Amino acid sequence: MPITDRRTLLQAAAALPLATAGASVALADAAPAPAAAPAKPAPAKGVTRALAHYIVTASYDDLPANVRKEGVRTLLNWVGVAIGGSRHQTVDIAVSALAPFSGPQQASLFGRRERFDIMNAAFINGVSSHIFDYDDTHLKTIIHPAGPVASAILALSEMQPVSGKDFLNALVLGVETECRIGNSVYPNHYDVGWHITGTAGVFGSAAAVGKLLKLNEQQMVWALGLAASQPVGLRESFGSMNKSFNPGRAASNGIFAAMLASKNFTSSDEMIEAKRGWANTISTKQDYNEILGDLGKRYEAALNTYKPFACGIVMHPAIDAAIQLRNENKLTADQIDHVDLKVHPLVLELTGKKTPHEGLEGKFSIYHAVAVALVEGAGGEKQFSDRAVNDPTIVALRGKVNPVITPGIKPEQVDLTVVLKDGRQLHRYIEHAVGSVEVPMTDKQLEVKFTDLADGILPAPAIRRVMDACWNVEGLSDAAEIAKMSVSA
Amino acid sequence: MPITDRRTLLQAAAALPLATAGASVALADAAPAPAAAPAKPAPAKGVTRALAHYIVTASYDDLPANVRKEGVRTLLNWVGVAIGGSRHQTVDIAVSALAPFSGPQQASLFGRRERFDIMNAAFINGVSSHIFDYDDTHLKTIIHPAGPVASAILALSEMQPVSGKDFLNALVLGVETECRIGNSVYPNHYDVGWHITGTAGVFGSAAAVGKLLKLNEQQMVWALGLAASQPVGLRESFGSMNKSFNPGRAASNGIFAAMLASKNFTSSDEMIEAKRGWANTISTKQDYNEILGDLGKRYEAALNTYKPFACGIVMHPAIDAAIQLRNENKLTADQIDHVDLKVHPLVLELTGKKTPHEGLEGKFSIYHAVAVALVEGAGGEKQFSDRAVNDPTIVALRGKVNPVITPGIKPEQVDLTVVLKDGRQLHRYIEHAVGSVEVPMTDKQLEVKFTDLADGILPAPAIRRVMDACWNVEGLSDAAEIAKMSVSA
Repeated sequence: MPITDRRTLLQAAAALPLATAGASVALADAAPAPAAAPAKPAPAKGVTRALAHYIVTASYDDLPANVRKEGVRTLLNWVGVAIGGSRHQTVDIAVSALAPFSGPQQASLFGRRERFDIMNAAFINGVSSHIFDYDDTHLKTIIHPAGPVASAILALSEMQPVSGKDFLNALVLGVETECRIGNSVYPNHYDVGWHITGTAGVFGSAAAVGKLLKLNEQQMVWALGLAASQPVGLRESFGSMNKSFNPGRAASNGIFAAMLASKNFTSSDEMIEAKRGWANTISTKQDYNEILGDLGKRYEAALNTYKPFACGIVMHPAIDAAIQLRNENKLTADQIDHVDLKVHPLVLELTGKKTPHEGLEGKFSIYHAVAVALVEGAGGEKQFSDRAVNDPTIVALRGKVNPVITPGIKPEQVDLTVVLKDGRQLHRYIEHAVGSVEVPMTDKQLEVKFTDLADGILPAPAIRRVMDACWNVEGLSDAAEIAKMSVSA
Repeated sequence: MPITDRRTLLQAAAALPLATAGASVALADAAPAPAAAPAKPAPAKGVTRALAHYIVTASYDDLPANVRKEGVRTLLNWVGVAIGGSRHQTVDIAVSALAPFSGPQQASLFGRRERFDIMNAAFINGVSSHIFDYDDTHLKTIIHPAGPVASAILALSEMQPVSGKDFLNALVLGVETECRIGNSVYPNHYDVGWHITGTAGVFGSAAAVGKLLKLNEQQMVWALGLAASQPVGLRESFGSMNKSFNPGRAASNGIFAAMLASKNFTSSDEMIEAKRGWANTISTKQDYNEILGDLGKRYEAALNTYKPFACGIVMHPAIDAAIQLRNENKLTADQIDHVDLKVHPLVLELTGKKTPHEGLEGKFSIYHAVAVALVEGAGGEKQFSDRAVNDPTIVALRGKVNPVITPGIKPEQVDLTVVLKDGRQLHRYIEHAVGSVEVPMTDKQLEVKFTDLADGILPAPAIRRVMDACWNVEGLSDAAEIAKMSVSA
């Protein structure tokens, strides 16, 4: 092929061997400047390194009490959803597909009997924990923080001894890393189509695993760089098993990155902020202050929330409103003429499926969610089963649910009116649904959720023991106890 | 490949409609639209499924002879570079980091003694094959096609029996898949910062592995979807070990995707073309005709090229000229008074280092490259070693190399004159260097390159046996022979 333009040649030249940093810079400098390029702020410098420095130096003793407490709640909630999802067909398939390739039996599969190497175990546990879309949420970014991080370090804790305090510190740092990196590119990065839990999550896993591996600063820089090279997940996969795949793969990719970095497998020193690094390549927005601002003072990890309902949080206000009206008025389906909801555009964008045929699809249907909440007064996993989405009463009612995009309604709000056949109108406005930062689930509610999820998988005394171990993680001399007691007999 | 065929292909490609940035092409509307009123293209439909259908139905017997031949050359070149890179520190580190997690010893590491599970083996072999940046290139996209694909299916062939014909068919289909997907988003996708070998490559690996696993069409759709969820690599990593990481991880991610899909782990049916699918999320350009146009007729896999010299292509014309004059005139260094080269400005911009001290620096020195080519008649990895750049004869001669930027000389050209002490002037003009599409490396030249790379790693008789097995891949009843005979004793 004739090399007819400068760019082609430069791109070919970029395929040069493992080069010195100076040579790489020369290549970048040689690129032709775009015509009439808009003035740009000076390039960011040192973002990756400053973040790495923070991760390798931050200690458990630095954590404020509220951050520690939220870290513990993050852990307990994650263990519950991981056990709860462990018998799903998605997990059976993953176990069956990966068993022939697993390394030594280093780590437990939550809620099951098999043991896999830590990377495959982290993947499978990450899948389990997201199956029901019932896990935790960092509301500013819609990242589900624990999936990529807890999956990774719970597996690692079975391979090398980790104290409970060090474990909790790593969990918080991993969550902090992924949420801050998520903030830096949200919403543009998410809007275009990335599943941000998988793209930011791999940094969280790498950071947390790297922390427990005691990487030095340079190695942590490389771990973050190798993590940046492995983003996971597209929103188009929502509604398929591929959605749960994403936090699982983020967890295993993060371990992969950290393990290579621990042996000095190199990357760039500026993979997050460089011109052709992660943020510029994967997003049209980059706000590095979100990554580095007030490190060790402002904690995104303290803002984690837990789902009271087994579906995407955009539907939670509507479910909350529907359950409240149903219970207060002892409503039955045959009384209802129709339901009007004023919603934020994201509700229809994410959960606009009108005729779900399977339980999983029901999680992406605001129509089903409102109908089942009115009929059954709940929004747990059973309400998003194949049984529920095909229940004739619920199917009939969902056809009468009318969500309308309404200016002024925020994503966390809903304005819901149930119009009865007798002409009455029952109205409920939700400013913050239960499970939000403002109306958090109580510790007791988290235990009820955990127990419901683990019921039928672990015996009741085992469920109690696991929950106690999670609440007491800071007192454990060996954090591996949590994983070891979370397996099926 | 003959130039006439190449032109035919280019004309065919040029006849395809071009996509507009940010828009999708309706495949149904692929015929030229009426001149008036340019209608906004409808969303693309069925791209992933149509590609999957092609992959699962295309057979070895469908392959034209020239495509089969180029597939064999692709294989032989890859095996050579994988063996050649196998003793590099980068590979030692990867082996050391991953050994504790490897599953059963299913697959060989080329040029080494260890055996890993097929996913980890594919990763490591993919890293080895890209270490020297000496592998193959699809010049339209700068994808290095074999890395992700050959790494994956050579490992797989050791786990399940694969005939040589089926192996070659899978190799071609994998290369075809990744290059077509690469074409669909190039150059925008590459320009913004993605390492396209790793992002498109994972599709190639998934397609080739899925083909050998005999996935049905729906499973292949899911395999491509899970591949789409795992893009690898950013250009910022160029110049670090992370660059070689990318084709390796693309290979293992593709296996991961195909293995899960083989057990019916689901994804979306439209992961490539959906609004929030791969192409729209990862690129501002989407041209689906590049993916589906003339499937089974136009073969990107026939356009693969191989580097004859272990350095960036800007120096290739000069090295080619120098070797030709040396060999034709049996030149020795002491005969040479000086060397004049007329070159394009990029040659000095990218490779203007006058006094390299280490082998790696030699790859950025046109002075060294010409001198070593005149002295040793080659431009392989050994000519860019610490030994070569410090050889007194070569050091003396490089001081007599005078590159002059000359208007009218294109980047792919050189005009080189060796002036001898006896007054004679030896002149050679290169229009296209060896290794280009126009002047492809001969089979013999590929063997010389292979032998040079494998020398010191495999004994000479073993090198001969491996090359013969590659040339004869279509006659092998078990393709695993290639990997098994490529290991160190």
